[in-house]
Order: sequence, then C-alpha cells, then structure tokens
Amino acid sequence: MIQQVEIILPNFRRGYHLITSLIEGNLPSLPKQGVVHIFVKHTSAGITLNENADPSVRVDFEGFLNKMIPDGDPVYIHTLEGGDDMPAHLKSSVIGQSVTIPVTNHRLNLGTWQGVYFCEFRDFGGKRRIVITVYS
Amino acid sequence: MIQQVEIILPNFRRGYHLITSLIEGNLPSLPKQGVVHIFVKHTSAGITLNENADPSVRVDFEGFLNKMIPDGDPVYIHTLEGGDDMPAHLKSSVIGQSVTIPVTNHRLNLGTWQGVYFCEFRDFGGKRRIVITVYS
Amino acid sequence: MIQQVEIILPNFRRGYHLITSLIEGNLPSLPKQGVVHIFVKHTSAGITLNENADPSVRVDFEGFLNKMIPDGDPVYIHTLEGGDDMPAHLKSSVIGQSVTIPVTNHRLNLGTWQGVYFCEFRDFGGKRRIVITVYS
Repeated sequence: MIQQVEIILPNFRRGYHLITSLIEGNLPSLPKQGVVHIFVKHTSAGITLNENADPSVRVDFEGFLNKMIPDGDPVYIHTLEGGDDMPAHLKSSVIGQSVTIPVTNHRLNLGTWQGVYFCEFRDFGGKRRIVITVYS
Repeated sequence: MIQQVEIILPNFRRGYHLITSLIEGNLPSLPKQGVVHIFVKHTSAGITLNENADPSVRVDFEGFLNKMIPDGDPVYIHTLEGGDDMPAHLKSSVIGQSVTIPVTNHRLNLGTWQGVYFCEFRDFGGKRRIVITVYS
Repeated sequence: MIQQVEIILPNFRRGYHLITSLIEGNLPSLPKQGVVHIFVKHTSAGITLNENADPSVRVDFEGFLNKMIPDGDPVYIHTLEGGDDMPAHLKSSVIGQSVTIPVTNHRLNLGTWQGVYFCEFRDFGGKRRIVITVYS
C-alpha cells in the first residue's frame, strides 16, 4: 500500500534546519510496519539525518561543508548563477536528496538522537518542494 | 507489487553522464503512485541526481571531485589496481550507489532541473550493470 | 508485504567493517523480487557498500576520510563530546545512514565486489542498532 503527499517548505535561509516535527505533521497515518521516503525535488538543497539536540552541530555542518566545498572555488566553470551555485550542486549530491526511514508501530523508527535535517545550500533558495511516500 | 529489470549500460568514459532518458526507456510501466530504486552493482561507479540543463555542471563535478578526492593521494595503500582505483571506491561511497525516486501519475516525480547522473569514476570502467526496481 | 527486524551489532572499533554475512544471517526469508533497506539508528556511524575483497580498501577509507574530515578541525564549535564527535556527525551524513539493496531470486542482488560496510566513526561507539526492512 502506497500513500504519497507533496509539500512546500517555508523559506529557509542557507544552512541546516531540523524539520522532524514539520515532516511528522505532514505524514499520512503510518502503518504498523513500513518505510517512509522523503525526497527533495531540487539539485541545490538536501535532506539528511543527524543530531537533533545541540544546535551547534548544525552550525558546524554549515562551517565545515563550506570549507570542504567552498563558494567560488577556482575549479568551477559553472559560475553564471553565482558563487554559491556550483558548491550547492556538489553538496546536494554529497549529502543526498532523499532519506528512507523505517516505520515501526505506526511511528518513524529513528534513533534517540536522529532528526531530519533540511539543507538549504543556496544563499536565496526560495520555496522548496518535498515528496513524502509511505509504503507498507 | 514489484517489477524489476537489470540492464547493462553502454561504455561511458570517466565522468558524469546524464542518463534520465536511458533509464526512462528501460522502465516497466509505472504505477499511479510508487517508488523507483536505481542501483549500480559496482564499487567504483555511482548514481546521483543533479542539474540536467547546463553540461558545465557535469564538468565541474569531475573537476571538483578530483580535487576533493585526488588520484594517487599519498595516504592510499590500496594502489595495486592503479592511481584511479582507490579514489573511485571513495567517490562511490560519498556520492552513493543508488537513488530512490517517487512515482506520481505514472511518471518519475523529479523536479524541473533534476536528472539522473551515471558517475564513472574509473579511467576504464567497462560495462556497468544497473538494477531498477519499481514498487507500488 | 513487509518484514522487519532490529538487531544490535557487536562492539566494533573505529573504522570500516565488512558485515555482509552478519546481515545475511539476520535477514528474514527473502522474496523472489523485492528490496532490503538497512538503517543504522545513529548519527555518528554509517552504512555503505564497497569493495569486499582487499582489506586495504577499508584501511584507506579510514585514512582518507580522516584527512578529508579531520578530528579536531578548528572550524568546529561542537567540541564538548570530544575531538572525534563532530567529524563523526559529518561523516555520517556524507557516507549515509542507510542502504537499499535489490532482492532477486531470494538473494541480495549485489555485484561481485559489493559488500556491506558498517562504519564506526567514534573512538568508542559502543553498541549500535540496525533496522532491516524487507519489502516485496
């Protein structure tokens, strides 16, 4: 059995944002056992799971990823859309554009410290679309 | 319901290649709602989603990833298969060996700019196998 | 049809560990066609597929990833849990916390050289939990 919903996120500024509650608030009723797939329809944003407690982890994601994949690196030839565009594409494939989470007893079966991060890699990303599919 | 097909890709040279049409041409008939899983059966190649319009993005993927994970890095001890082998393994796990895409109204529900990239990380990768599974 | 099992891994030291046989030994009976999802419930560990033959590949994963995402980088502000904590969170999102593998003829349809790696990114990670979901 498949249930699917497409949602539009509120505007997020560049960085890593905890959206576990936002996702849970948009889920259809979950089965006893199954899987949830969360998919961002963009190539300059991402979805990942990481630490849900200390906000400094999200700050360090922004700081370190900017060091690992810098804005305006001299290697880039795709520069017409700005110095933040090509690194956003790279980060999107390195971090990933979807996560799949098990469902157990009608709930997301996340670990204690796992939260869903929406990753906005552009300076001004605008409205972003997500497709959530539940199968059981 | 599950449908599955295994295909052999044409030889691709090292780099990032847009294969959305090739994949769509090999899909079984898609359900109204569901998910497609595309899986490469190799540890020195990858699959990801990224920008489908400007070919310079694919050139920058090759240029920047080679800078981030260089051929012949002095750290490598696994060097018997050539200077391009160990970085290919690393890129394969950093970029990933599969993508999962939602299906909506009998079509891949990709964003406007999302295309499927096949990533050949070896200098001479040869024939590569992909397994496509559709579930609904 | 969904089958699901949650397992606790034995303690692994920091590094990359081939757990294909451990996973296969914990799988429910596999369908003719389907997919297996393997999910680690932690934000400082990971799961990936890579070369299953030469152990030097796993050594190079540890060596190179430590160079790419170093312990104690001066950028980190999340440092209370030790110099290995923030890089563990970063690696966990770069490598990923789950893999999805096709099932064909009642077996994992992996390539010849593909094995399942459990990635322990902490110096002392302790007991780690994995959820395996089979759907068909």
